[in-house]
Amino acid sequence: MHFAAPLALQSGASLRDYTVAYETYGTLNADKSNAVLICHALNASHHVAGYYADDPKNTGWWDNMIGPGKPVDTNRFFVIGINNIGSCFGSTGPRDANPDASAGSLRQAYGADFPVVTVEDWVNAQALLLDALGIETLAAVMGGSLGGMQALSWTLQYPSRVRHAVVVASAPNLSTENIAFNEVARRAIVTDPDFHGGHFYEHGTVPARGLRIARMIGHITYLSDDVMNSKFGRELREAVADNGTGYKYSTQDIEFQIESYLRYQGEKFSTYFDANTYLLITRALDYFDPAQKHGGDLAAAMAQAQARFLVVSFTTDWRFSPARSREIVKALIDNRHRVSYAEIDAPHGHDAFLLEDPRYLDVVRAYFEQEVAA
Amino acid sequence: MHFAAPLALQSGASLRDYTVAYETYGTLNADKSNAVLICHALNASHHVAGYYADDPKNTGWWDNMIGPGKPVDTNRFFVIGINNIGSCFGSTGPRDANPDASAGSLRQAYGADFPVVTVEDWVNAQALLLDALGIETLAAVMGGSLGGMQALSWTLQYPSRVRHAVVVASAPNLSTENIAFNEVARRAIVTDPDFHGGHFYEHGTVPARGLRIARMIGHITYLSDDVMNSKFGRELREAVADNGTGYKYSTQDIEFQIESYLRYQGEKFSTYFDANTYLLITRALDYFDPAQKHGGDLAAAMAQAQARFLVVSFTTDWRFSPARSREIVKALIDNRHRVSYAEIDAPHGHDAFLLEDPRYLDVVRAYFEQEVAA
Repeated sequence: MHFAAPLALQSGASLRDYTVAYETYGTLNADKSNAVLICHALNASHHVAGYYADDPKNTGWWDNMIGPGKPVDTNRFFVIGINNIGSCFGSTGPRDANPDASAGSLRQAYGADFPVVTVEDWVNAQALLLDALGIETLAAVMGGSLGGMQALSWTLQYPSRVRHAVVVASAPNLSTENIAFNEVARRAIVTDPDFHGGHFYEHGTVPARGLRIARMIGHITYLSDDVMNSKFGRELREAVADNGTGYKYSTQDIEFQIESYLRYQGEKFSTYFDANTYLLITRALDYFDPAQKHGGDLAAAMAQAQARFLVVSFTTDWRFSPARSREIVKALIDNRHRVSYAEIDAPHGHDAFLLEDPRYLDVVRAYFEQEVAA
Repeated sequence: MHFAAPLALQSGASLRDYTVAYETYGTLNADKSNAVLICHALNASHHVAGYYADDPKNTGWWDNMIGPGKPVDTNRFFVIGINNIGSCFGSTGPRDANPDASAGSLRQAYGADFPVVTVEDWVNAQALLLDALGIETLAAVMGGSLGGMQALSWTLQYPSRVRHAVVVASAPNLSTENIAFNEVARRAIVTDPDFHGGHFYEHGTVPARGLRIARMIGHITYLSDDVMNSKFGRELREAVADNGTGYKYSTQDIEFQIESYLRYQGEKFSTYFDANTYLLITRALDYFDPAQKHGGDLAAAMAQAQARFLVVSFTTDWRFSPARSREIVKALIDNRHRVSYAEIDAPHGHDAFLLEDPRYLDVVRAYFEQEVAA
């Protein structure tokens, strides 16, 4: 959907006309009360469920959660997947033409000139999309990780427009360590000579080295120590026969399976993800902190929320640990808001929020059946 | 000390004549029974204690632990600090001339041709140094982190030459996650265009971008989440006045204090540390695994040790967690070897092994007074 009016951003900048990509599943009911908005995290898009007729392998990123008869049942709910501004998957982002570029300038794409966007900006853009769709109130807003931050922010920015918020594997702000990992990833991208200050499009380059490093760091933090040990351990990719240890004794060749896995993930990511988008999205994560303007008092921040909440965390998630979800729960309880909380015993770390786990899916299913649909 | 005879390495390669840098403190007694060998970790050297007359600010890296009247008391013990082969701090390493370089070749330094070295190789070189010093048996061998691995390996490679092993903040091998972090750091270095396949010396470059990223990752893993939160939190370096949040809204400028800290540490490191040394040392860490040739059975590996042990870990160390130290302790107990174990409640993460912590220093002091000196 194209928006002709400028979007005022939290930074003070604004985005001239822009496009928001979205997908819908199921049918909006007559009183428009069954809409569920799904917010995405770093590496995802509006394509949350199902697949396209001409691309059957490209399954939506939350397809195990959303669909006919699934926990978020599209026979009952009208689900909207949205792609955030600044992304490289459909909505207006750094790769797109900058309307403020001077005529004839080589610098046609926004690149590093794309304005910094925040979780709050994304939620504002999402609300404008809902306006255009004629939806006043969401039955639920739902997201994992950074998507959970958007769901949380919805309840503060538009308290009367959200009946339920489902916040999975998320946090009320990033810890110092989270920011630190983001910063290292950004430095790897920005210092890649092929980044060209963020205007690499016009140089015909891609800062692939930096993107690979960023993604490798990401993958380490998405997994738990346990799952890495059990999945890869110290297994060698191809052991040398008859030398006692199996090692090649090389600092640059791949020795361990985990190295092979990380290099593969980094390589794949660098072929499709936009470097400027990576910077923007990690910064949005860094900046999110609804308690900030209440002197760090999250309970004070959450006072204005009117939604009911389901908060879910995973025991081995060290990127957004259960302790961070419990901070949200406590802030809600302090306000006597209604909240259900599930801490799922899962070995998969932060990645767990995307995986097939019956206990997790059952919790969400039960919440939608018994609370959201009620 | 220069060694003219080649050093046979675990990889099958060998190092032609080489030099080992070392420092000593205190006096070797008449029966040469009071020698304590200190093994270093990634970013350290033979300069373990004290300072030089002409460089009073350059204090040894374990000066709070070693010296007259300190836990490892140099009034009583003859302490030897040694720099490992492959380092960039004095012993023969990648920056040095390669004796196998063809005459007239531009490639005079080893660079990436320096042979891969292992913990076992380092211990062999250390043993040769002791031979040259006329020391048959060590009162103790001691180290933290990678240094602890060397201390452990001493008890297996030269069981009769070690009376006590002090293994601090260490592990019997790296976890998958540890290897993963090492691999990301190495990839950042190796893919830096200034690395030139490890032969950057002859190009007059330094892969500073890669070294900075490697060091930033390292620093995150040396600190605990808690200490990062309490030391830096979400504090901004210079808040913008009167815009509500204080943010500059920039993806590339420094916003948070933690970013400033990491960039500073990365920059400093890149000016003095050798990239090839970084690769070699992290690989030595990856490779160490004394249980490997016993089918992963650490107790079977430790059977041959004769030394008595002090094992120390720190509660918030997630790089070499207490659980890993307990594996060592269990393997020793399974063999009915004598071991003392201290798990120090400290907030500082892996870094704690280098810091001033009375409980930690007292444990080491008591062990040296009551066990080693006994």
